[in-house]
Amino acid sequence: MPQLGLLHGRAWTVFLGQLRRPPGAVCIRAVRSHSQVAEALFASQLKPQEKSNFIIKTPKGTRDLSPQQMVVREKILNVVVSCFKRHGAKGLDTPAFELKDFDIAGQFDPMIPDAECLKIMCEILSELHLGDFLIKVNDRRILDGIFAVCGVPESKFHAICSSVDKLDKISWKDVRHEMVVKKGLAPEVADRIGDYVQCHGGISLVEQMFQDPRLSQNKQALEGLGDLKLLFEYLTVFGVAEKVSFDLSLARGLDYYTGVIYEAVLLQTPVHAEEEPLNVGSVAAGGRYDGLVGMFDPRGHKVPCVGLSIGVERIFSIVEQRMKTFGEKIRTTETQVFVATPQKNFLQERLKLIAELWDAGIKAELMYKNNPKLLPQLQYCENMGIPLVVIIGEQELKEGVIKLRSVPSREEVAIKRENLVAEVQKRLSES
Amino acid sequence: MPQLGLLHGRAWTVFLGQLRRPPGAVCIRAVRSHSQVAEALFASQLKPQEKSNFIIKTPKGTRDLSPQQMVVREKILNVVVSCFKRHGAKGLDTPAFELKDFDIAGQFDPMIPDAECLKIMCEILSELHLGDFLIKVNDRRILDGIFAVCGVPESKFHAICSSVDKLDKISWKDVRHEMVVKKGLAPEVADRIGDYVQCHGGISLVEQMFQDPRLSQNKQALEGLGDLKLLFEYLTVFGVAEKVSFDLSLARGLDYYTGVIYEAVLLQTPVHAEEEPLNVGSVAAGGRYDGLVGMFDPRGHKVPCVGLSIGVERIFSIVEQRMKTFGEKIRTTETQVFVATPQKNFLQERLKLIAELWDAGIKAELMYKNNPKLLPQLQYCENMGIPLVVIIGEQELKEGVIKLRSVPSREEVAIKRENLVAEVQKRLSES
Repeated sequence: MPQLGLLHGRAWTVFLGQLRRPPGAVCIRAVRSHSQVAEALFASQLKPQEKSNFIIKTPKGTRDLSPQQMVVREKILNVVVSCFKRHGAKGLDTPAFELKDFDIAGQFDPMIPDAECLKIMCEILSELHLGDFLIKVNDRRILDGIFAVCGVPESKFHAICSSVDKLDKISWKDVRHEMVVKKGLAPEVADRIGDYVQCHGGISLVEQMFQDPRLSQNKQALEGLGDLKLLFEYLTVFGVAEKVSFDLSLARGLDYYTGVIYEAVLLQTPVHAEEEPLNVGSVAAGGRYDGLVGMFDPRGHKVPCVGLSIGVERIFSIVEQRMKTFGEKIRTTETQVFVATPQKNFLQERLKLIAELWDAGIKAELMYKNNPKLLPQLQYCENMGIPLVVIIGEQELKEGVIKLRSVPSREEVAIKRENLVAEVQKRLSES
Repeated sequence: MPQLGLLHGRAWTVFLGQLRRPPGAVCIRAVRSHSQVAEALFASQLKPQEKSNFIIKTPKGTRDLSPQQMVVREKILNVVVSCFKRHGAKGLDTPAFELKDFDIAGQFDPMIPDAECLKIMCEILSELHLGDFLIKVNDRRILDGIFAVCGVPESKFHAICSSVDKLDKISWKDVRHEMVVKKGLAPEVADRIGDYVQCHGGISLVEQMFQDPRLSQNKQALEGLGDLKLLFEYLTVFGVAEKVSFDLSLARGLDYYTGVIYEAVLLQTPVHAEEEPLNVGSVAAGGRYDGLVGMFDPRGHKVPCVGLSIGVERIFSIVEQRMKTFGEKIRTTETQVFVATPQKNFLQERLKLIAELWDAGIKAELMYKNNPKLLPQLQYCENMGIPLVVIIGEQELKEGVIKLRSVPSREEVAIKRENLVAEVQKRLSES
């Protein structure tokens, strides 16, 4: 995942403090950038007692974004934050661009929070309308089990794991070559690994692996398979199992995952033949990292933790590239209604109307002129993408009506003045 | 206003660029920290051609806030940002704590955008439920006119203006003493000023000042009074005139205001006799500053500009102090429904129910345990302020119902399983 943002040491310490004193049987759902922290920890070899400030990376320059880009970014972040809140997250910090990570820590029964993390990923990726996607899942214990039963020396686990992790980018032939030539693995061991890591499928593949004569002899692998079976059961209940694929090549580069791991990828083909395929990598990832928090605990207690990261920066790039390709127009305001007049001396009436709209919570604008001409008012609405225009003139005033104009269709209907707010709200809720 | 936040030079330059090429007759509503910029400009004596980065102040440490404080801050900012959007603002930057200011620049007829700024202030202060408030308005031209007709030498305008500005904190007697003894004003001149600056009232005071034998001789003052009359007319149409007081002592320290100026103050008496009165100053302010943008224009053109600042930091302190006084509990999550069971082996049913709620956009949680006890589940809801509990057990499953429990009243009703989402949505919309 591309990572960005600052994580303040104090927030992290408070979070860890909460973990060490879990309130009864209740878990903590918190949002922070866990993989950053983990990476920083491993990189800097921090000792448990060192709880000083972490400044991981400065945020990318959101201040250099255009108004259009800011709107896109805000929409993406809104989807992510709303979903996190829907799942009970607390600890959402105000500068919203830092919020990518959702973590659940505390005492819980197997795979329940893990399944929720995958459900959250599905909800966010569906709501972002990024096209079709797939979430690959695997388990570190299954991978380790495969390496063990295939005869990989334990000292080579790490190196071989990082070769396997390349299978989404290069062919098995090339991965095998790297294992044998560069990493000194016996060819027959590499071939045995190849039989496993090229498999992917649903819950039936989990069942199949349970029956595998070699893998079923490995305690670690069996634990991992047992958890995945349970996970798929819960995913079926959540209605998202068909979005999830058990993929034995998924390794995830990070050492701190201890159990189930997952990664979401977009599945897309260019819509136009001449269009460049988007260079899409993973857009969300996460897993179980029970060991991490223990590093901070003075008594070294492990606290179960699952978490996920949403690649906000990558999603932003994808959306932006797509907008360029399709020439999509982005509104920079959210104005829903424009109050216009074709005649002179209608300022007071316009002000009355717009105050009614504002007081009803409707986003509305007017032109700051005493006597504006109608055409520039309508043109402004077309340019700014404002969907509705309320028009008041002499005829309307006399008849106690206003005209409601749909900007896209240019259709106008007269409605009773007193029904204005209700009619506007009805139209806005339908659109 | 207490000011904070960063303003990036590029955003400001883009904004100014837009001003220099106003799109037809349309104005730009933008959000930034104009008074900061102005203060920095005046402080640093920047020349017009210097358009480099301004770094005004680093934001106060939002990262040191507790989850409760973050929730309060987010709620305040949401009110401010929603209101700005309702009034067509563009240029809202993502790190929300920087957004305080609303500005309208471009070509417009007198007092229309000024009236909108005051309407915005009223909307925000009402929605924040800060208690009763009053917006004082005055006009720099009226103040200057008063000084002129009372016989203040022009070289002393600035010094006398800053004395007048203290009238909301110290008595007229003390202000007069400062004017005469410290600033060398003739006592009879000070007395003449006193007759004016102790006046405050509504539109009738504006009319009265029009008739004032001395002030009506001053061209500048008449212009200011004419604008205020128009402003009060528009405020009456907007239904907020009774919240606004023409206060001839309002001076606002900032030199760059060129016309109407305004400042919102909270009116409050302690609720408990033993309670310390809150040290409330102004919580929002703004005005017309037509000269400022001209400084940046290569041809020195003046662009009409009105703007307002919301004192987010001060409002935050007030809300926080009030919460402490009343011992108010702040929720750190937004969870609306908790899915519980009193019996063993109901995990799958709970997962099914919660997925239905999530898919309907309802914020829901459950306990990550296979077989949790009922009491801790209900206690968790009470502690976290979750208003509704959905309870499923054997009896409910058999009858095709679920129990819906109101946490505050502890009342339970059985409803048909298929009506769950609709019933929850109904209850939430009513609360």
